[in-house]
Amino acid sequence: MTDYQHITGHDLRALVRRGEFAGVTPGLALGYVQANLVVLPREQAFDFLLFCQRNPKPCPLLDVTAAGDAEPKLCAPGADIRTDVPRYCVYRNGERVDEPTDIVDLWQKDWIGFLIGCSFTFENALLQAGLPIRHIEQGCNVPMYRTDIACQPAGVFHGPMVVSMRPMTPVQAIRAVQICTRFSKAHGTPIHLGDPAAIGIRDLGRPDFGDAVTIRPGEIPVFWACGVTPQAVVMQAKPPICVTHKPGHMFVTDWKDVDLDQ
Amino acid sequence: MTDYQHITGHDLRALVRRGEFAGVTPGLALGYVQANLVVLPREQAFDFLLFCQRNPKPCPLLDVTAAGDAEPKLCAPGADIRTDVPRYCVYRNGERVDEPTDIVDLWQKDWIGFLIGCSFTFENALLQAGLPIRHIEQGCNVPMYRTDIACQPAGVFHGPMVVSMRPMTPVQAIRAVQICTRFSKAHGTPIHLGDPAAIGIRDLGRPDFGDAVTIRPGEIPVFWACGVTPQAVVMQAKPPICVTHKPGHMFVTDWKDVDLDQ
Repeated sequence: MTDYQHITGHDLRALVRRGEFAGVTPGLALGYVQANLVVLPREQAFDFLLFCQRNPKPCPLLDVTAAGDAEPKLCAPGADIRTDVPRYCVYRNGERVDEPTDIVDLWQKDWIGFLIGCSFTFENALLQAGLPIRHIEQGCNVPMYRTDIACQPAGVFHGPMVVSMRPMTPVQAIRAVQICTRFSKAHGTPIHLGDPAAIGIRDLGRPDFGDAVTIRPGEIPVFWACGVTPQAVVMQAKPPICVTHKPGHMFVTDWKDVDLDQ
Repeated sequence: MTDYQHITGHDLRALVRRGEFAGVTPGLALGYVQANLVVLPREQAFDFLLFCQRNPKPCPLLDVTAAGDAEPKLCAPGADIRTDVPRYCVYRNGERVDEPTDIVDLWQKDWIGFLIGCSFTFENALLQAGLPIRHIEQGCNVPMYRTDIACQPAGVFHGPMVVSMRPMTPVQAIRAVQICTRFSKAHGTPIHLGDPAAIGIRDLGRPDFGDAVTIRPGEIPVFWACGVTPQAVVMQAKPPICVTHKPGHMFVTDWKDVDLDQ
């Protein structure tokens, strides 16, 4: 039986490519950087690249493929973004129309793949520092909220920042700021802590995505820019076609988490 | 008489725009972030944006204008990149053909301006920490060298990294690494220290750009990725048209150096 936790990113991708794994990836190929995927035709690619450049906290770009080339040469040489993600979401005009396990037949010669850093990288670093990750303790998905913080727009792409939330004591939050400072390619420092209303969140108990978690006495909510932001922004722009990973079903790179510690 | 050193970025740009200043900008509008400028037609803009994204140390992007829009809305709202740079260089097919003080008549509706961070920002921080900047002490330009470090290519843009060099003692170099870690938008940490041959530099006494400086006993050369890199790469790609600032004649933003300390 394969030990999915302790294999390399390369080996996990090989299983995915052969159709032997199509599940969610948190906790798998431990230590390897996982990435959000957005695929767009060249027509929208400049605006989206600019959107990422202007909003590096929600959209920390790890790698961008050449038009029509499915290989992310920087973060996973030899990989194929058409086959190496466990499950995809296909959107037409902003509507989800399919969730295939590969996009080989869909792929067009002007398509460009964007791989965007993911919170798992800094969560591993927080865990190693002994800080709590409540949704992992509670075995659920991280709570995510739409805020009233507007992203910097770029061409057709605009919209509010989505954040993820992790409860911590103030002392833990301060340590988390220190640690996350080093991971600018994985959403970087928190963007807010404390009063949810200050960033337009009405009810922490009712997240817009993911699951609510317990906030214990003495803890405050700590908010990070979230990789769901670019997906929400792309859906709102309603391009004729767009492909993303299915949430939780990430692309696993060859980079180690420590490679992003800089 | 105008005190160019102690005016704001906004006020210095106003003087430039009115034709009252067309000189070099180091040491002027102290505390305000200065930027390299590259203007390209939309045809080349995606590849160049991707080149910057893949090579953030030589090409730390501060702001990118919308196609045909000369206002850098993030770093200098109300500014005009066609008039607010003291002197420009116009390149056709990679050859410098003119050095005008504005580009209003040249400007086309598909042109895009890229403003790229500059070493003055971290030099100010190093000076404030009591570290030596030899070329400032010696009243000359910083020495710059082509290396054998290949930039990550993007479409038509590729070439070697150009570095700037500042001599320091090892203890000073260690402190400089700490300080520059905070300025990823101004070339970030050094990319090398010590043996010049390790990065393909044959003779420190003969820089490829700028002026040679004295290295004192007990000092080692410390090398930073340099903003000349994107200009060299663009010239090598020989696009039909490209406009840059003339070296030393920078665009001065509204951002303060401390705004980039993150």
